[in-house]
Amino acid sequence: MFATYTTFTVRYAETDAMGIVHHSNYPIWFEAGRTDFIKKLGMPYSKIEERGFMLPLLELKCCYKGAARYEDEITVKTTLKGLTYTRLVFQYEVFKNGGQNPITVGETVHVWTDSKLKPVNIRKAAPDIYQLIESTQD
Amino acid sequence: MFATYTTFTVRYAETDAMGIVHHSNYPIWFEAGRTDFIKKLGMPYSKIEERGFMLPLLELKCCYKGAARYEDEITVKTTLKGLTYTRLVFQYEVFKNGGQNPITVGETVHVWTDSKLKPVNIRKAAPDIYQLIESTQD
Amino acid sequence: MFATYTTFTVRYAETDAMGIVHHSNYPIWFEAGRTDFIKKLGMPYSKIEERGFMLPLLELKCCYKGAARYEDEITVKTTLKGLTYTRLVFQYEVFKNGGQNPITVGETVHVWTDSKLKPVNIRKAAPDIYQLIESTQD
Amino acid sequence: MFATYTTFTVRYAETDAMGIVHHSNYPIWFEAGRTDFIKKLGMPYSKIEERGFMLPLLELKCCYKGAARYEDEITVKTTLKGLTYTRLVFQYEVFKNGGQNPITVGETVHVWTDSKLKPVNIRKAAPDIYQLIESTQD
Repeated sequence: MFATYTTFTVRYAETDAMGIVHHSNYPIWFEAGRTDFIKKLGMPYSKIEERGFMLPLLELKCCYKGAARYEDEITVKTTLKGLTYTRLVFQYEVFKNGGQNPITVGETVHVWTDSKLKPVNIRKAAPDIYQLIESTQD
Repeated sequence: MFATYTTFTVRYAETDAMGIVHHSNYPIWFEAGRTDFIKKLGMPYSKIEERGFMLPLLELKCCYKGAARYEDEITVKTTLKGLTYTRLVFQYEVFKNGGQNPITVGETVHVWTDSKLKPVNIRKAAPDIYQLIESTQD
Repeated sequence: MFATYTTFTVRYAETDAMGIVHHSNYPIWFEAGRTDFIKKLGMPYSKIEERGFMLPLLELKCCYKGAARYEDEITVKTTLKGLTYTRLVFQYEVFKNGGQNPITVGETVHVWTDSKLKPVNIRKAAPDIYQLIESTQD
Repeated sequence: MFATYTTFTVRYAETDAMGIVHHSNYPIWFEAGRTDFIKKLGMPYSKIEERGFMLPLLELKCCYKGAARYEDEITVKTTLKGLTYTRLVFQYEVFKNGGQNPITVGETVHVWTDSKLKPVNIRKAAPDIYQLIESTQD
């Protein structure tokens, strides 16, 4: 299955008074992984938006198993767990410093909409985008 | 059941290029609700931290049903769904502009730890804190 | 001179590994003060945007004199230091827990633009908005 | 003069309802540049903190000349403009998509402190750190 690995360094601003990365940053890191996943598929999400389609979130789940700290090297593994004509489900695993076990795992459910946030059937509205994304499931 | 209602105004920095509040802000709003909940119980979380206890997250769930925009007036309703000697489960409902239906609902699971992030049994380690929190379930 | 006082509580997400509020939050707090200032003038900034005008930043200055921590009660005092037909200069003083001396002071310079981010002369484009804002200098 | 170039991709969460990167992200990007600068000098800032020294901000200045958008490729050029035994002044230029002219320039002034945020003379307290940083001025 198509998967992408996105890497970056923990920013000081992402830490909190516990000395670890604040939990609200993981959804942002998932998004960085998702951006990279869609770009590496061959169609940057910014281009999808230019064509008038958006992918707002319906659901978000995070499971925190370990902590990251300032300057840790982070890798987000992103895969597409499922798709329909109207929705996408992404999965994420976050690793630090080359570790084997994810420190956080997560999932986001998205709905395809037009630029007014009205749901659309992407297979009808943009068959090329649908096929591109479906190709990741082979 | 004990519930708190925490209100604030959407900040411009919280919006994104879709013109709506970015989904990563809801966990921060849940936290603002949780802070208020614990403070109104009678023991601010900052005092709990001074005593050497912390409540990092194990799990986060958000379900997005509607969008908020810049300058919307937000209310977060916070309740404690469950507690054990080692964990707390909070629930959140986010309303905007006095609306009856939440635009987002969420849940966070927390573990009691010491200041080194090592799990503790809060009933043993700080019975007064445990009893205070348990009192919300009456 | 017209001044507004905007209050809120420090969020945990706003702290960093030094145990204090991360410096990048002050520009966001200034913005909360600015939002409140414009709203109390009688025309919420969201309405100004609906009319097709925006106020992006040209310059930002912050001077940090003290630190804020989680759960501190913050007050932002906002004043308009100067205005021309094309620009606004706001000043901010941030106080904590009712203190007399600001922990941070700052200034932002803004340019009036249309919705495409092209500069406009607001006195010509929207004389009512210009007069409303000029009234704060009496 | 020693300079570092730090690159990353604009995150969706960093955009705002104007469709551009919110101005509060530039101080965070400056920090990412500063982290990289200190690390490439040979002593990661996280190690400096472990030795009990910190570099909180005294002043921040940003001058915004252009806008960045989602998925833009950002480069932060970081240099050390000046140093004394107690302070450091960093300068930043932010470029997008390989452009020749910076979209934002900035400066931060920092004070050396111990872990209690009390100012220290770093040349006395840690001569090796002082010399390492001074070497960038050759």
